[in-house]
Amino acid sequence: MSAAIFRRELVQDEPALICVVAGDDAAPEVVWPTVEVLRRLVPELRFVRGSSGREAEERYGAAFPQETQELIDRAVCTLFGASGGPSRPVLWYLRWGKDTRVNIRPVRWQPGYRSPMREPEHFDFVIVRDNLEGMYPPREGDLAELAALASSRTWWQPPPVDRQGAYAVRICTDEQMAYVAQAACELALERKAQGYPGRVTLGAKYSIQPRTDGRFREIVRETVRRYGELEYQEFLIDDLARRMVAVPESLDVVVLSNEHGDILADMAAGCIGGLGLAPSGCYGPAYAYFEPVHGSAPDLAGKGVINPTAMLLSGAMLLDYLGYGEQARRLRKAVAEVYRRGQVLPPDQGGRATTEEFVAAVGQLL
Amino acid sequence: MSAAIFRRELVQDEPALICVVAGDDAAPEVVWPTVEVLRRLVPELRFVRGSSGREAEERYGAAFPQETQELIDRAVCTLFGASGGPSRPVLWYLRWGKDTRVNIRPVRWQPGYRSPMREPEHFDFVIVRDNLEGMYPPREGDLAELAALASSRTWWQPPPVDRQGAYAVRICTDEQMAYVAQAACELALERKAQGYPGRVTLGAKYSIQPRTDGRFREIVRETVRRYGELEYQEFLIDDLARRMVAVPESLDVVVLSNEHGDILADMAAGCIGGLGLAPSGCYGPAYAYFEPVHGSAPDLAGKGVINPTAMLLSGAMLLDYLGYGEQARRLRKAVAEVYRRGQVLPPDQGGRATTEEFVAAVGQLL
Repeated sequence: MSAAIFRRELVQDEPALICVVAGDDAAPEVVWPTVEVLRRLVPELRFVRGSSGREAEERYGAAFPQETQELIDRAVCTLFGASGGPSRPVLWYLRWGKDTRVNIRPVRWQPGYRSPMREPEHFDFVIVRDNLEGMYPPREGDLAELAALASSRTWWQPPPVDRQGAYAVRICTDEQMAYVAQAACELALERKAQGYPGRVTLGAKYSIQPRTDGRFREIVRETVRRYGELEYQEFLIDDLARRMVAVPESLDVVVLSNEHGDILADMAAGCIGGLGLAPSGCYGPAYAYFEPVHGSAPDLAGKGVINPTAMLLSGAMLLDYLGYGEQARRLRKAVAEVYRRGQVLPPDQGGRATTEEFVAAVGQLL
Repeated sequence: MSAAIFRRELVQDEPALICVVAGDDAAPEVVWPTVEVLRRLVPELRFVRGSSGREAEERYGAAFPQETQELIDRAVCTLFGASGGPSRPVLWYLRWGKDTRVNIRPVRWQPGYRSPMREPEHFDFVIVRDNLEGMYPPREGDLAELAALASSRTWWQPPPVDRQGAYAVRICTDEQMAYVAQAACELALERKAQGYPGRVTLGAKYSIQPRTDGRFREIVRETVRRYGELEYQEFLIDDLARRMVAVPESLDVVVLSNEHGDILADMAAGCIGGLGLAPSGCYGPAYAYFEPVHGSAPDLAGKGVINPTAMLLSGAMLLDYLGYGEQARRLRKAVAEVYRRGQVLPPDQGGRATTEEFVAAVGQLL
């Protein structure tokens, strides 16, 4: 992996084709205005629409039709709205089918965000999360099966094979942990060049799980050491969760397993003001997709009031991926300025603006 | 299980013998002053000292000598300081040896606590956490072993048995999940009698793990329904983590798996002002132990400045367990009053008081 993990080198004359899968419920209401903004910033981008969910069922007889998969494959990346259930197969394909190994979740408060914290200005870090392994996808079964595991005879407590219940398996391959560690280091280097400390922080339960989390620690430590110019710190995952609310200013790039990242990234989004503000990008060796981390908000569908910030900022991550860094900066700056002025804010941030009004306010500042 | 899970009925003339295991590093500095306070509140309590860690190694040649185990067994409950490593076998015995199935972690801000939240007064809930199963104790092995699991042929993704790496197993028995669910309901009922809403909130990843977390949801739902007079709500664990910082006032009794509770309880402690303030009690059908959830704070050892609040409040939980509710209330009230006055505060809460000075201030208000 080179530094190119977060960049797609566009071949001369290759059309930068982007597949847009708007997703379920209220998600399309933030997706299409965002596409308009991206189009305006980079007119040469080409967007194709991939159908999914209920719409696709009506048109193609499947929630994830072959046509959509082909569009995803032809595109250099995908912009995804949110799944409320029906579009989940698309998400699983984008993740495991397209081998997008790391999930990047920036956590950054800006003036105007309605945070529950006393000093929200200290929130400015990025979570790098395993996107493929750990507890997801599910691998479960009856407790009785566990007697078949060779190691079970060496466990401090034997598995309760005679009792009613189930197990779930957590998977950690060295290869994937190394990829995630490297992604964290690449990002920390990139941020260091922007003035951040260049500090990688691991959170894991290495005290209790030596073979999985302990191995993750070993790999991250070793990877950071190889990079030479980065700082490293590690905390047990419970302690890191506490530090994230207590001393967020001590964090720069935080590297986490799939399930730990899932929990802590949402918690961190809550700290800056909610999921409506939290963008994300998922990157692999040959593909990437971008989605706001909020759900499909079925309660808001059709009302035109869903906050488009997370989607717009995910769009900015897409622009960065395709090498349009200057345009990404312009978009982020316009969003920040709308919040700073505080006159056109979405309902979840204490305002009364509709989705359309908010996007229009951003558009005026581009 | 009756409501007695949080009460030990003392037999007439049975001496209320309490084993004290002070633990490692700075932990004894909060344990012994707390014992003095408890003794003063309830003179008939009898405390015996169980040796552990380095001290026990010198005296008995073992970090967890047989003598200490016998004292734990003879006592009706144990007051435990904290383990910095050497005393860990004691903690494991208290948990799995004494079958203490649920961990109760009250999360309550009081005026004077130095919280990073804008509105800390909204934090007033209790976490009920599985204390025995889930990912702890560790059950790990090589990925190649997973081919032996019968269910592995039905998984959406086969286990990567050819790759280098490890697995960890999560265990969920119906019996233990039912016990945890019932404990949450008992506690919610008890709190309802005190004016709380009587609301049980489940956090789990039931969307992804139907056999384990999905089953937990089923059991908790059904248990709450049987209690009749309780409210119920459920959230995916990532969403609950966000809600805990964003809308803590919506929580009353939160029921969680072992690893989720581990993470969220520490995070919640961070929200009210830190681990120095966070007490806990672990209860089973026939035993209980009480410990502050902070670590052994090796950096503070010998300095006399470790915050004794978590230990004192754990002592109040011990008094409640033994039926001395009035004395527990007096202790809590005295601690709250010291914080309210704000003149004698420990360093982690922005003051300069030594451990001794803080305990003395509490003592004057008993």
